[in-house]
Amino acid sequence: MPYKVLVIPGDGIGPEVVEAALHVINAAAAKYGVDLEIKIAEAGDVALRKYGVAMPPETLKLADSADVIFKGPIGESAYDVTSLIRMRYVLYANIRPVKNLPGVPVVKEIDCVFVRENVEDVYVGAEYKIGDVAIALKVITGVGTRRVARVARRYAEMRKRKVTIVHKANVLRVVDGFFRDVALEELRGLEVDQMYVDAAAMELVRNPLRFDVVLTTNQYGDILTDLAAQVAGGIGLAPSGNIGDTKAMFEPVHGAAFDIAGKGIANPIATILSAAMMFEWIGRGDVAQAIRRAVEISLEKNIKTPDIGGRNTTIEVGKFIASAI
Amino acid sequence: MPYKVLVIPGDGIGPEVVEAALHVINAAAAKYGVDLEIKIAEAGDVALRKYGVAMPPETLKLADSADVIFKGPIGESAYDVTSLIRMRYVLYANIRPVKNLPGVPVVKEIDCVFVRENVEDVYVGAEYKIGDVAIALKVITGVGTRRVARVARRYAEMRKRKVTIVHKANVLRVVDGFFRDVALEELRGLEVDQMYVDAAAMELVRNPLRFDVVLTTNQYGDILTDLAAQVAGGIGLAPSGNIGDTKAMFEPVHGAAFDIAGKGIANPIATILSAAMMFEWIGRGDVAQAIRRAVEISLEKNIKTPDIGGRNTTIEVGKFIASAI
Ligand SMILES: CC(C)[C@H](C(=O)O)[C@@H](O)C(=O)O
Ligand SMILES: CC(C)[C@H](C(=O)O)[C@@H](O)C(=O)O
Repeated sequence: MPYKVLVIPGDGIGPEVVEAALHVINAAAAKYGVDLEIKIAEAGDVALRKYGVAMPPETLKLADSADVIFKGPIGESAYDVTSLIRMRYVLYANIRPVKNLPGVPVVKEIDCVFVRENVEDVYVGAEYKIGDVAIALKVITGVGTRRVARVARRYAEMRKRKVTIVHKANVLRVVDGFFRDVALEELRGLEVDQMYVDAAAMELVRNPLRFDVVLTTNQYGDILTDLAAQVAGGIGLAPSGNIGDTKAMFEPVHGAAFDIAGKGIANPIATILSAAMMFEWIGRGDVAQAIRRAVEISLEKNIKTPDIGGRNTTIEVGKFIASAI
Repeated sequence: MPYKVLVIPGDGIGPEVVEAALHVINAAAAKYGVDLEIKIAEAGDVALRKYGVAMPPETLKLADSADVIFKGPIGESAYDVTSLIRMRYVLYANIRPVKNLPGVPVVKEIDCVFVRENVEDVYVGAEYKIGDVAIALKVITGVGTRRVARVARRYAEMRKRKVTIVHKANVLRVVDGFFRDVALEELRGLEVDQMYVDAAAMELVRNPLRFDVVLTTNQYGDILTDLAAQVAGGIGLAPSGNIGDTKAMFEPVHGAAFDIAGKGIANPIATILSAAMMFEWIGRGDVAQAIRRAVEISLEKNIKTPDIGGRNTTIEVGKFIASAI
């Protein structure tokens, strides 16, 4: 039985970086004999303009029946596509590895994995306005914290058995305190430390190598992973996986970057490394490794886009990496 | 009539950096003829251990009758002291200027002022736990946004007439959207742009000079100002003011740093520059300028603490700056 992959190219630079990544995905699947059934569907700002809805019913049906979703960045309607997919399929762990790559100008050395809770926190969409007062609920549950902490545990066990829990329990004593307490319980037996989110932002610039696996809530993870990606050398390189118990979605951390869309200069590496994470998730770590190695070869041979000092186009980079597998 | 200043030395390195700053405050007041009535009171972890309460009634009474509070960092009980003072006296604008200083190793050039809303957001302390679910309210009001936006306007008018509003209204459409809309209204006539908080964290590392005045909500400001201080060369240099309509509190951005407390190596500059902001607030910009100039002289003459490459003690730096006024 083939793995059903739904591809959503998305907005802005999305179609370009996804096209480049598809070259890699197809080459890898062919070479390593992975049976993929790939469908492509629309979602995002363009869909919103065309059909009046960012996530058309057609796309939703395909997503429902897919095993895995491979998605480019979404523009202004990201909440209605990205968050919807995360919530609908309860993709409760957002995995964001951050690591320097060869030949990329870097702010600091860094090598860590963020495990960001992905379906709770202020992102649940419970917001109200009453007169002059607007209120949003920040929601943390024990069950939600437990399951994402278990994912952090798995990553820690594959790495250095070390987890940093990031929260703000000195102010948010009840909610962040609850997250911390449940996480501590779930991570027992590992080397665990804690950091306030403001201090963590500072430390990611001052001494990023002190982090290995970082477990945090949804919004802190949102902020800190963009920051960490920048520290590692730029958001154009940062992949991510959204993992649930039965389904997953893979996507670059970066956004739609409308300012450079259509110019052929967008860096496809974040999207290609997200494809590697997808192969890993379906149990093909060997294919993931082959893709990562091919990315390194392209960087070593200086086949890269202008954002990291190269002269190649998005598609040239994608085709080169595909050929290097 | 003298200005009534309540000094709270605080925890960890607090007493050391505040002692150093008091040398500067006293020298400046004497030289420039500013009439200050200084009282010193306990609050924080030590008070909590001694009296069972982090903010003793005695201290609260003195704070009530003071014109201005000058505070060192507080340890674990910061919420019960720092946040209490901010809320009780409605110090709704947290002003955090971030600027490189001479002779300080820097991550990137930066020169901006954060205006952080200081009494709303998830910091209001409305938190509940019901069974397995913990909930905190994120609260944004029109009146609260309007008054802090007016402070941002004042700073913008003294600088480049340019404000960046930082929010996450693509996800928090109601609350952050309300903050953005009210702020936009209040800032009309200035050059205003917007950025999502995750992108702002990234940009503070990538291209910090694109920021001038930054207006944001409480928790985003908490995270971004620590980050920005680190980009500027370290948290040991970052001052802040908490401003209300009739009272104000000045304090360093950094925390109690228990790991280096009592060693005489803490950097007093953040606290001394907070004193400069205090003189500015009471209408003595001339004294503020003199203090800032004296800080620069100490850095140029290499009279500095180890965190920024010097060999001097906290008190040596304080006394030198006092003498250079
Ligand atoms: C676009 C937005 C909904 C999303 C988020 O905030 O989670 C994005 O910033 C991310 O980090 O994946
Ligand atoms: C200690 C804490 C209450 C405080 C805050 O989060 O506001 C501190 O981090 C700050 O930024 O002043």
